Amino acid sequence: MTATLGSRAVPGSPDHGAGHREVATAVLRRGRDTVTPALQAAVDRLDDASRTQARYHLGWTKLDGSPGAGGGKAVRPALALLSAAAAGAGVEVGVPGAVAVELVHNFSLLHDDLMDGDTERRHRTTVWVQWGASSAILCGDAMLALAQEVLLEAPSPHAAPAARLLAVTTRELIRGQAEDLAFESRDDVGVDECLSMAAGKTGSLLAASASIGAVLAGAPAAQTEALHTYGHEVGMAFQLVDDLLGIWGDPGVTGKPVLSDLRSRKKSLPVTYAIRNGGDIGRELGDWLAADGDPTDDELHAAARLVEQGGGREWAAAEARRRRDRALDAVTGAGLLPGPTAELVAVAHHLVDREF
Amino acid sequence: MTATLGSRAVPGSPDHGAGHREVATAVLRRGRDTVTPALQAAVDRLDDASRTQARYHLGWTKLDGSPGAGGGKAVRPALALLSAAAAGAGVEVGVPGAVAVELVHNFSLLHDDLMDGDTERRHRTTVWVQWGASSAILCGDAMLALAQEVLLEAPSPHAAPAARLLAVTTRELIRGQAEDLAFESRDDVGVDECLSMAAGKTGSLLAASASIGAVLAGAPAAQTEALHTYGHEVGMAFQLVDDLLGIWGDPGVTGKPVLSDLRSRKKSLPVTYAIRNGGDIGRELGDWLAADGDPTDDELHAAARLVEQGGGREWAAAEARRRRDRALDAVTGAGLLPGPTAELVAVAHHLVDREF
Repeated sequence: MTATLGSRAVPGSPDHGAGHREVATAVLRRGRDTVTPALQAAVDRLDDASRTQARYHLGWTKLDGSPGAGGGKAVRPALALLSAAAAGAGVEVGVPGAVAVELVHNFSLLHDDLMDGDTERRHRTTVWVQWGASSAILCGDAMLALAQEVLLEAPSPHAAPAARLLAVTTRELIRGQAEDLAFESRDDVGVDECLSMAAGKTGSLLAASASIGAVLAGAPAAQTEALHTYGHEVGMAFQLVDDLLGIWGDPGVTGKPVLSDLRSRKKSLPVTYAIRNGGDIGRELGDWLAADGDPTDDELHAAARLVEQGGGREWAAAEARRRRDRALDAVTGAGLLPGPTAELVAVAHHLVDREF
Repeated sequence: MTATLGSRAVPGSPDHGAGHREVATAVLRRGRDTVTPALQAAVDRLDDASRTQARYHLGWTKLDGSPGAGGGKAVRPALALLSAAAAGAGVEVGVPGAVAVELVHNFSLLHDDLMDGDTERRHRTTVWVQWGASSAILCGDAMLALAQEVLLEAPSPHAAPAARLLAVTTRELIRGQAEDLAFESRDDVGVDECLSMAAGKTGSLLAASASIGAVLAGAPAAQTEALHTYGHEVGMAFQLVDDLLGIWGDPGVTGKPVLSDLRSRKKSLPVTYAIRNGGDIGRELGDWLAADGDPTDDELHAAARLVEQGGGREWAAAEARRRRDRALDAVTGAGLLPGPTAELVAVAHHLVDREF
């Protein structure tokens, strides 16, 4: 039995796939267009060195200072803007929240790249490689402080609770990264610990992004909590799918080498599930993961089979589906405005229902 | 001619020295006693790893987890508490500000120790040496986020402007550290640039500390600005005196080796002044500073003489005196309550009128 690489049935709602993709793509593009001028104005305030590094990191410039090809998908700002709209506020209400979550996201990328020793991000040299560790630390620190500054300058009377949400979220993000680093030297990590780590690293900032606009809009607690749940569950589902793609993803789509997460012997969610619940197969997988050296392609395919036979693939796909549905339930039952709610639904499908 | 080591006339007001010292010592002790329980409660919220490292870094525990000898002077929390009292508020109003500035101060120490490669702080191994660079980065990040969190939870209706002040200050701190790192590889740094760096690294957080309590108390802008000026100028004077002590300080008092700043060829304020304004003497000093290798004690004494002959010692002492007097003018002319104002005056003298 060989692992099925490339396309595989997407979890649920195959009928709406294309429509959701179109809507979500438009939402993300619109979000990016809206947030970019405000984000640029904020970054312009940084000290000279941090500004240069941040502009490069965000994809706005190349190393020689000439214009860059642009940055990532800007999912978090788009969610922040949608959450303000869903609560009935104008787009300008969500903008400081959108800028702030994107700054916090990039603060964490700058520091994580350094800590993880990653030399490239999106096929570009990382800041710490280019300018040194101290610059990556300081530029990240400055972006984190700037995020709070921008948020606290928002004209909204609800800027303080939004800033508090961002601070709590930042600590969650840090807890997740600390656990991730600690797990590297442990071989007894459980599924719950792994889910908790993902909740910190991925769930927390998506939850904050999907609710910060509504907080700035002064929405009732039931609505901001529903949006927070939506973001958290979408984040968890996204991470589960990402982990599936890290093993069975099509390199042509993911941009990562085939079986990449197994190549780096990463204790991802499906792998951890199979180790802890796969009996003898799980033990075999655990032993392989704990070994050293560069694995051959045959070994990688064998390891992927063990993850599948140990139930990791099926569990992760079902869990992603379950999380996505909880996100959809939360956001569609909160009495939010129908237009933005439909867009939040489309974004959830777009982020979770990927080919794997 | 030899440089005068050890005691030397303190700049100004010798008559009040002993009285100020007593008052200031009591103020600092009281401030530390007041802030410590709240600071401990805040640190207890950190993730397990960051909490352990923060408690060690703050001097509360030894490496084996047993009780430590306690931390530093806690000047910043004491100023925060005094600034609330000066504006007529109860001590509890200033506490979240006091906790926040101490957390930001220690965030910067954790990151700076790593960037500067300092292996010891107050005769104890630094966090990055003990737990690794990633831990120092994450623990610092967590303390910065926690500072905002504590402040934004303050019951004061003025928590948001206080948090904004802290965010702006954090970026100033980072700018100062970035300039400090950049100056290491330059030999043309001017006195103004050096003062700007000190304003970022030392002035900004003392300015925020001395005004954040008044901001939380909702004091009029004229009062918070006067307190901000007081803190800024005290910080600058403190740095100037620190730089003097780094050359001519008594090792028995400073705890640093004799002529320590010259030994590390540090471009401190008196050194920079002498280089830029000392003519031939300045050029000789600049050449010596740019050289490599471990200097002999004779060379160090000769370099100290050059700083003095180039006017660096006299300028720094006069500038410290001028800054201290501006601080005193600001704080005594702002209509603040007389009791806390007298204590702020005593603290300024205590921090600036040190033996050098």
